[in-house]
Amino acid sequence: MTQPGLSFIGYQRSTGKDHAFQAINPSTGDSLEPTFFAATPAEVERAAQLAHRAFLNYKNASGAKKAAFLRSIADNIDSKLDTIVERATAETGLPEMRIKGETARTTGQLRLFASLVEEGSWVNARIDTALPDRQPLPKPDVRCMLRPMGPVVVFGASNFPMAFSVAGGDTASALAAGCPVIVKAHHSHPGTASIVAEAILEAARGQGLPEGIFSMVFGPGRSIGQALVAHPLVKAVGFTGSRAGGQALMKVAFEREVPIPVYAEMSSVNPVFLLPGAFQGDLDALAQGLFGSATLGVGQFCTNPGLVFFEPNATTLLWADKFKAAMAAGDSGIMLNPGIRDAYAEGVESRRGVDGVEASIVPAFPKESGCAVPPTVFEVKAEDFLKQETLAEEIFGPETLLVHTRGETDLLQVAENLEGQLTASVFGSEQDFANNTELISILERKAGRVIFNGFPTGVEVCHSMVHGGPYPALSDGRSTSVGTFAIERFCRLVAFQNAPEAFLPDELRSANPLDIQRLVNGEYSK
Amino acid sequence: MTQPGLSFIGYQRSTGKDHAFQAINPSTGDSLEPTFFAATPAEVERAAQLAHRAFLNYKNASGAKKAAFLRSIADNIDSKLDTIVERATAETGLPEMRIKGETARTTGQLRLFASLVEEGSWVNARIDTALPDRQPLPKPDVRCMLRPMGPVVVFGASNFPMAFSVAGGDTASALAAGCPVIVKAHHSHPGTASIVAEAILEAARGQGLPEGIFSMVFGPGRSIGQALVAHPLVKAVGFTGSRAGGQALMKVAFEREVPIPVYAEMSSVNPVFLLPGAFQGDLDALAQGLFGSATLGVGQFCTNPGLVFFEPNATTLLWADKFKAAMAAGDSGIMLNPGIRDAYAEGVESRRGVDGVEASIVPAFPKESGCAVPPTVFEVKAEDFLKQETLAEEIFGPETLLVHTRGETDLLQVAENLEGQLTASVFGSEQDFANNTELISILERKAGRVIFNGFPTGVEVCHSMVHGGPYPALSDGRSTSVGTFAIERFCRLVAFQNAPEAFLPDELRSANPLDIQRLVNGEYSK
Repeated sequence: MTQPGLSFIGYQRSTGKDHAFQAINPSTGDSLEPTFFAATPAEVERAAQLAHRAFLNYKNASGAKKAAFLRSIADNIDSKLDTIVERATAETGLPEMRIKGETARTTGQLRLFASLVEEGSWVNARIDTALPDRQPLPKPDVRCMLRPMGPVVVFGASNFPMAFSVAGGDTASALAAGCPVIVKAHHSHPGTASIVAEAILEAARGQGLPEGIFSMVFGPGRSIGQALVAHPLVKAVGFTGSRAGGQALMKVAFEREVPIPVYAEMSSVNPVFLLPGAFQGDLDALAQGLFGSATLGVGQFCTNPGLVFFEPNATTLLWADKFKAAMAAGDSGIMLNPGIRDAYAEGVESRRGVDGVEASIVPAFPKESGCAVPPTVFEVKAEDFLKQETLAEEIFGPETLLVHTRGETDLLQVAENLEGQLTASVFGSEQDFANNTELISILERKAGRVIFNGFPTGVEVCHSMVHGGPYPALSDGRSTSVGTFAIERFCRLVAFQNAPEAFLPDELRSANPLDIQRLVNGEYSK
Repeated sequence: MTQPGLSFIGYQRSTGKDHAFQAINPSTGDSLEPTFFAATPAEVERAAQLAHRAFLNYKNASGAKKAAFLRSIADNIDSKLDTIVERATAETGLPEMRIKGETARTTGQLRLFASLVEEGSWVNARIDTALPDRQPLPKPDVRCMLRPMGPVVVFGASNFPMAFSVAGGDTASALAAGCPVIVKAHHSHPGTASIVAEAILEAARGQGLPEGIFSMVFGPGRSIGQALVAHPLVKAVGFTGSRAGGQALMKVAFEREVPIPVYAEMSSVNPVFLLPGAFQGDLDALAQGLFGSATLGVGQFCTNPGLVFFEPNATTLLWADKFKAAMAAGDSGIMLNPGIRDAYAEGVESRRGVDGVEASIVPAFPKESGCAVPPTVFEVKAEDFLKQETLAEEIFGPETLLVHTRGETDLLQVAENLEGQLTASVFGSEQDFANNTELISILERKAGRVIFNGFPTGVEVCHSMVHGGPYPALSDGRSTSVGTFAIERFCRLVAFQNAPEAFLPDELRSANPLDIQRLVNGEYSK
């Protein structure tokens, strides 16, 4: 890091020198240079003012202009790949391959949103033309489309230093929508955040975009983030993190004079239901599949499979032994920071004491290396599972709870008892699915994504992805934080009535100069 | 009314005999038979349970089945038109023509949603097909669409006994989405509500729909409504009414263990900006136009024009005199109930005392007839207007505040100072619009619908209508409560990954059996 650790307030750097902190290498416990400093309250105010002013210009940027900006960010990130890998691996303990993959996903996402806004049909344009002679009243000309809301505050996530952080899905979709972004960087990877912030700001300058289109602040605890969410010029919030963190922001946003939407991805245990047909194939492959999903990224995925339901019999218990053996033999992995490590250790420890729960695989936690933790497996009968609400809650990390169900009643009861989830997976034959339509129907009500014969980790970035789900998976269960639908989170519908052609956005002009898909007098057309 | 005034709990009638109340004829002050009684807490619980159970079935109803249900409701309402007109005019003081028109709008709206769900493309279906050989990871098959959320509680509005009440836009869009509805009837028109509830229930029975698809409760004050909003099986809320009422429901919904969305249409003063060109035509027509809009329905429209901005000069003041003369000569109209009448009288009285405000037309309120009130006009200079926040707030009724602006700075400042609005109107020549692009840009940020050379009353029910706008116009400014987009309020996105064809909803099957518009691998197609 050549620069000191200062916030980015529009095109300037912060002057703040308070609340010094450093990133910690979770592999070694060492502090990493440089020292970072919090933005001052005056700078937070300035970031919001600049974002508002930038919005007045950027909200009218064409799809082509926004696309060029997003692609330029992606190109800049690509060109900094080596620096990103070096810094991000040091700050997160994640391996080089993972950071490379996540960076590719991040730039791919930026380019997907670029193509979306360049094509333009995403605005949901609708036109109903006038009928001046209609009786008893003339029909006016009404045209509507999605328009950007205004400045968006994005909170970087600890577990995805690239794809859910500074230039991650929230930022990409907000910028694509036409909203300036203020990022509150995650304190775990401030150096990685700074490199990405520079990539964005270089792109903004290069594209001649107004100052304030992007800012990034560092700050202690929750105070700076909450000040941003409370700011009257901020119009929406994107967050990926803990349930307590998301709920705190929801409260601040709700208690404003003008409440704003908070899109907080908070908590999910991603239940996996293994029906009889799942065990008719290769038991080793099924065990390895779950092991791989449960331990991917040291279990630090929103889509980590935390609950697995199956009916115990000779075959399924043999499978469970194979899965447990794999977890027992699994290497300890380095978690992202001491706070997350401690929370995992505490979660495992308290689960150990719950009535009816067997601690099947709970190795001693390594002492020498700060953030290294082993995979763990617990087992419980459905009847005991149902008695203890905490067993359905997330332990963030490589922990899996195997739940033994007996008969359909158990299965439906445990499913109905689940909170909202990002995903629900069901494994089996087509005959199993046909025999369990009620289970599948429950899962569809509980989750944003229902997966057939697949584990939940791995979230494809595409038009049809839903990375959402009822509360508490998402604070706002109507939406998704991955995939192109995410852009709609930062928009609202606006109608223009009897507007002269010259005062309509291009998307709504009669000649359809952008050649986009529209609903015109009830018919879809280009 | 042949029936006693009892709540409708699924297909049964309430047994409650507490909290007796009667509707009052606002024209005469007389109480109307029969006596109505509140539902018991146990019945409220039963309505929620029945709605949940009905949802498990109704969520999978085909578009054709839902369309048949909506059309049957419309037909039943049509067949009860005479009874509705007789009762509604007595309960609301609104004239027969208005009730007839509003009933036609209500049935038209039901039929519009019927055609929407019958056609089917509204679900936003998206398909991304698998690429099993993609490197480094295979791409899964992912398909998503909008799915209904669950039981919806709808609060009837006092000012639209048909179009925003029992079978109004909230109910029509929720039923179209696939959500059962529990209506909390407005205490002002319980008889009208009962007739419409019967129309819905006859349709539900006739279509063989499960009990609980619709319930309607009476209840005192806010307690029953809040109990419904707090119920864990309720998933969303539609409300049209006062800001205080909407805010109370928002708080209940936010403080639930699982918060739910509240779509509350609460408050709007619908600013009208008269630019120089507006005065180049027929001044009488412009004055009559504003008079008609300001006094329509005794000013009891969400879109009533409460603020009018113009620059004073000889011509515009002449126009203002014509408008004031029309308002002064306007008949007193009968408001919907004593509470609304009192609030209007208090609003007018307190505005009279505000610094710098001239009470231009404030006749004495008629004493003999309980709910009759006169139109009123106040005037103020922009500089005084800006000093008093209350002047930008809604006085529900036929009141208009004329604001004298001087120059562009005034105009932009008063516009920027506005709260969120359902509508903003701008009158002028195309040259005026070209000279005031900044004003129009501000209005687009402040309102759900920007109207050119038109008054705000009259909300066309069509695909492109936006009857929404930033808070406090709507609690959730992303959406609309009129027009077909309203259906999305009661839906959430759900994705299916690698689902066998047989377990996909028809909307997502590869062969596109419903022949709907979809986004398949990034291309729109049927």
